[in-house]
Amino acid sequence: MYSFKNDYSEGAHPRILNALLESNMEQVEGYGEDPYCIKAAELIKKKIGRIDIDIHFIPGGTQTNLTIISSFLRPHEAAIAANTGHILVHETGAIENTGHKVISIASSDGKLTPSLIMPALEAYIDEHMVKPKLVYISNSSEIGTIYSKKELEELSKFCRENKLYLYVDGARLGSALCSEANDLKLSDLGNLVDAFYIGGTKNGALIGEALVICKDSLKEDFRFFIKQKGAMLAKGRLLGMQFLELFKDDLYFDLAKHANDMVYILRDGIKAAGYGFLIDSPSNQIFPILPNKLIEKLLKNFSFYIWEKVDEENSAIRLVTSWATKKENVLDFVEALD
Amino acid sequence: MYSFKNDYSEGAHPRILNALLESNMEQVEGYGEDPYCIKAAELIKKKIGRIDIDIHFIPGGTQTNLTIISSFLRPHEAAIAANTGHILVHETGAIENTGHKVISIASSDGKLTPSLIMPALEAYIDEHMVKPKLVYISNSSEIGTIYSKKELEELSKFCRENKLYLYVDGARLGSALCSEANDLKLSDLGNLVDAFYIGGTKNGALIGEALVICKDSLKEDFRFFIKQKGAMLAKGRLLGMQFLELFKDDLYFDLAKHANDMVYILRDGIKAAGYGFLIDSPSNQIFPILPNKLIEKLLKNFSFYIWEKVDEENSAIRLVTSWATKKENVLDFVEALD
Amino acid sequence: MYSFKNDYSEGAHPRILNALLESNMEQVEGYGEDPYCIKAAELIKKKIGRIDIDIHFIPGGTQTNLTIISSFLRPHEAAIAANTGHILVHETGAIENTGHKVISIASSDGKLTPSLIMPALEAYIDEHMVKPKLVYISNSSEIGTIYSKKELEELSKFCRENKLYLYVDGARLGSALCSEANDLKLSDLGNLVDAFYIGGTKNGALIGEALVICKDSLKEDFRFFIKQKGAMLAKGRLLGMQFLELFKDDLYFDLAKHANDMVYILRDGIKAAGYGFLIDSPSNQIFPILPNKLIEKLLKNFSFYIWEKVDEENSAIRLVTSWATKKENVLDFVEALD
Amino acid sequence: MYSFKNDYSEGAHPRILNALLESNMEQVEGYGEDPYCIKAAELIKKKIGRIDIDIHFIPGGTQTNLTIISSFLRPHEAAIAANTGHILVHETGAIENTGHKVISIASSDGKLTPSLIMPALEAYIDEHMVKPKLVYISNSSEIGTIYSKKELEELSKFCRENKLYLYVDGARLGSALCSEANDLKLSDLGNLVDAFYIGGTKNGALIGEALVICKDSLKEDFRFFIKQKGAMLAKGRLLGMQFLELFKDDLYFDLAKHANDMVYILRDGIKAAGYGFLIDSPSNQIFPILPNKLIEKLLKNFSFYIWEKVDEENSAIRLVTSWATKKENVLDFVEALD
Repeated sequence: MYSFKNDYSEGAHPRILNALLESNMEQVEGYGEDPYCIKAAELIKKKIGRIDIDIHFIPGGTQTNLTIISSFLRPHEAAIAANTGHILVHETGAIENTGHKVISIASSDGKLTPSLIMPALEAYIDEHMVKPKLVYISNSSEIGTIYSKKELEELSKFCRENKLYLYVDGARLGSALCSEANDLKLSDLGNLVDAFYIGGTKNGALIGEALVICKDSLKEDFRFFIKQKGAMLAKGRLLGMQFLELFKDDLYFDLAKHANDMVYILRDGIKAAGYGFLIDSPSNQIFPILPNKLIEKLLKNFSFYIWEKVDEENSAIRLVTSWATKKENVLDFVEALD
Repeated sequence: MYSFKNDYSEGAHPRILNALLESNMEQVEGYGEDPYCIKAAELIKKKIGRIDIDIHFIPGGTQTNLTIISSFLRPHEAAIAANTGHILVHETGAIENTGHKVISIASSDGKLTPSLIMPALEAYIDEHMVKPKLVYISNSSEIGTIYSKKELEELSKFCRENKLYLYVDGARLGSALCSEANDLKLSDLGNLVDAFYIGGTKNGALIGEALVICKDSLKEDFRFFIKQKGAMLAKGRLLGMQFLELFKDDLYFDLAKHANDMVYILRDGIKAAGYGFLIDSPSNQIFPILPNKLIEKLLKNFSFYIWEKVDEENSAIRLVTSWATKKENVLDFVEALD
Repeated sequence: MYSFKNDYSEGAHPRILNALLESNMEQVEGYGEDPYCIKAAELIKKKIGRIDIDIHFIPGGTQTNLTIISSFLRPHEAAIAANTGHILVHETGAIENTGHKVISIASSDGKLTPSLIMPALEAYIDEHMVKPKLVYISNSSEIGTIYSKKELEELSKFCRENKLYLYVDGARLGSALCSEANDLKLSDLGNLVDAFYIGGTKNGALIGEALVICKDSLKEDFRFFIKQKGAMLAKGRLLGMQFLELFKDDLYFDLAKHANDMVYILRDGIKAAGYGFLIDSPSNQIFPILPNKLIEKLLKNFSFYIWEKVDEENSAIRLVTSWATKKENVLDFVEALD
Repeated sequence: MYSFKNDYSEGAHPRILNALLESNMEQVEGYGEDPYCIKAAELIKKKIGRIDIDIHFIPGGTQTNLTIISSFLRPHEAAIAANTGHILVHETGAIENTGHKVISIASSDGKLTPSLIMPALEAYIDEHMVKPKLVYISNSSEIGTIYSKKELEELSKFCRENKLYLYVDGARLGSALCSEANDLKLSDLGNLVDAFYIGGTKNGALIGEALVICKDSLKEDFRFFIKQKGAMLAKGRLLGMQFLELFKDDLYFDLAKHANDMVYILRDGIKAAGYGFLIDSPSNQIFPILPNKLIEKLLKNFSFYIWEKVDEENSAIRLVTSWATKKENVLDFVEALD
């Protein structure tokens, strides 16, 4: 039984565990002020190409989202997200729990555009309503789609014109940036958005996300928010060391590229077998539409989520690959389609 | 330079890293529903001697405290803590940030007793004030003192009579339970308190605390709160595996006992050298009072916190030992006192 | 210029002002514990026909909604409302600001039914999502529709079967209960819902809503929540005295009936002039569809809100009548249609 | 039986009721945008001597405090208050409920000074603690003391140097400014503090406080916060009209002066009868120390609060006068001392 359910089924890339082992007995400062966190932050700044940004390491994605959004917004301000957005669907109302409404925008591909957002700005107009202030997007999105450079530039321009913060949930940023369809660089993110995070948990780390704050006014006192939300680990080294390992060469991108390479084999095999997809997603999540009978058969040897019913006889499933997926795993799956 | 600043300066006990390594490529369920979390929870239940309690694994202490307290209390209810309590002093107002006042009780030894709490119950009497509802204690306390079985029994009885929840922050529970002065068992906690956590981070784990909920009415829907507060790790295995290793034999207690043995060498050496202590603390934190000149000299080879000025010429310092402290480290320190 | 913009344009019914005047210099207890509040609560209980319910007087509707909902729900629980619901549209995210998501249900007539709610219960299924717990409805709704007894009975049954609280925002409850289309009694509300409020502000009071809590488990400590949310007036008499006046005979219903009588003249006149309506609303808000040119002409002598564009040449407007609307006002409007 | 329990036992000054009556049937805009609110705000600005300040009318004091403080502070920032401060003692944790800690400063006279505040600034120093940001004072204080101009100037200077907001709860500002011991003008407040409110409820209004925001950066979007906290009345006219009446001449100050004149008769009579006071309070609350037997006797004809036990035979009581207290009431009391 091999699982394509998600990209966090295994532990961490061996190099990461090795780095933890080697430095294990070294005594360092706590709470993210150790040499590993400091060095990892410097490396990431260099990769992004800006020295004036702030980097913080946070254990998980929901925690990063709620810490960021609740610290950026004043009490009457709201976030805007696609209706598939993680903060709307899979975080148990964490953002609302910090006091802020999330405005849901229907989107067919999991992405937001100026023209999708504009009606919300036109509808929320006075003090009897919340004030839209932060645009939340995910790259790749929750349904595997990615933003092109042009799309992100347009969104960035729109947000700046309308005094909206633009924040990118990068739980699967690695896969997005290493997609064959991608033309966006890490440095583009640094220039176009106000904050984003580089997901570690879903790209080879045991745990951890690297939050990047680009906009000056949002940097102040951020460590207070991390601590207040319970997101500051005593052994912060655990996070710093992993990102150091991921970014000291191109390991982060190599792992993401591998996940994509594996998903493309799946995708091409499924296409070749004559099946279509719910959506065209060029990253490590794909949503093939298969006959229910075939799905039943596949479930004997593979585990994955049934995403939605398409018609009486067919359903879309979700397949996710990761840094840990082996070529034989995907070939087995393709073979099993026959 | 050797650091006695805290008990989270090093990584994890080698057996824990080894367990992570060995299971690394195994695919398991996410979000704390993996076999390691399940087995670790069973083991801990057995050690506590109650099958009907709930165990949850949470990355850090502040997060555990804020998740517990905000889920147990209704909006008008308040926690009560000693003025040295971690939630009052070192969590950036995390509890207040979830909407709840923390009532501060002056305590000379970092502990609470019925007679210290009673005046607060008598002062908060009507709907113009918050309603005291949860008693927060730490064992060992923030200044290293521990609760005797009799003290905890009295507190438990008092809380039940006054319809107060009793919650124990066990960040350093290992050191408390393995203290030479201790007569409390893990099973006593299971019977006397409504919830407590068994601290991993400060006793050999890389990260993680095991939250134990004893009172039935507080168990319902608890996984919702963990998720909502961002405390549910995708790779929950990281937590479960560590606690499995710590509790599959007596490793957890062996590590705590070692930390205590090391601190006792320090304490006895300091006493023998003719110095006194700010408080009598039989766990892995001690607060010797030393001449400022000696402190200056010691700081050349050791790092530690200066806790408070005692008089013009003397100050109390804090020394903390851990599972990782070596006998040579403490002997070096004692020797340096001359 | 006469305004049909809303039902809170004028002050209070003269009998209310008179009651305030007559009792003005009497010294009474503060914070809602005065004889007027007590007597008004008793009267309302009698009208509802249940002695075991709790009555509280609160200055305004948003405040009542946020106090009720935030005190009834635990942190992970959510309210459900029609997409036109006041808490979703016109309260500046007040509910989310207390930490709770409001799940929006598309509804064509501003009302909720079991079959509209069921999909939300089926979608919110585990701890990664909020837990739907309270159904918020308004009677009359924000677009003037009302619930029949049968509809409310079905909703009540559904909520009890699914362990959902049922709460009715009664800002315009008077107009609903006095509608020619109504078959619901105040006593039905007392039996079918867990809490509701009887709106004063929009039915002749200067200020004030009477909150009725029917479900035992929701009554406890409610005065704490009122105080904590800033909703407990020092001069609570101001609220009690008004409700005493409104309920010591049938003034409350007489005023609502008058508002409805006036709106029916408008409605019938508009129909007679050949125009239709956006929705069939048998209470004191109606939404006629008129030619833009006619609207422009009417705006010279009347003020009202343009609700929405219907097509290039026609728009729906909103007309609201109240206890203070005079027959001549509505006749003038009908005449102006020609 | 005459009550000296508080200054909100009666209704409103007759001129206020009369103003409500006269304008009752006039149709005006809702939510504080009516001509009465606008004109009252202009009058108050003129009295303060600054055109660039913002005025908002809010129903009650707790609501004003919680709206102000929660909108001024970011999530990690805390308020500082004297241990007798209303927000610490009598608002059911309303400030904490909005997410903010209130740091309590022991003060013998209910007032704060730079030297009392400084230790808190020195203690709260890093991201593991909240960040003190707003100083809350009351004038008059909860125990009747008042700030001199020099004291307020020093506090203002200190706050500006330390980037702290200075906010004055003026529930009893009238009595403070009209005290025989006062040398502070309304215009001084406008220059020295960042925000304050002019209490109506305790000085002759039925309900209502006038919030004054002086600091530019705190003004933005304030109406959103008022609405979100449920503090925006549909019939905002009720508040505007009262403040218009209170400030269109010197009624506000006349009423406060009257309350003070009455309390001085009490005070002088009590002194003449040979009794002392718990504290020297030159405003409309006094705290005489009387023999318990005398207190018992007085309670037969007067109601008041017993404030605290002084020794076995004596207790301090609280007497409060108001705009409505008649000379005969206070003379009766003085006479009863014999």
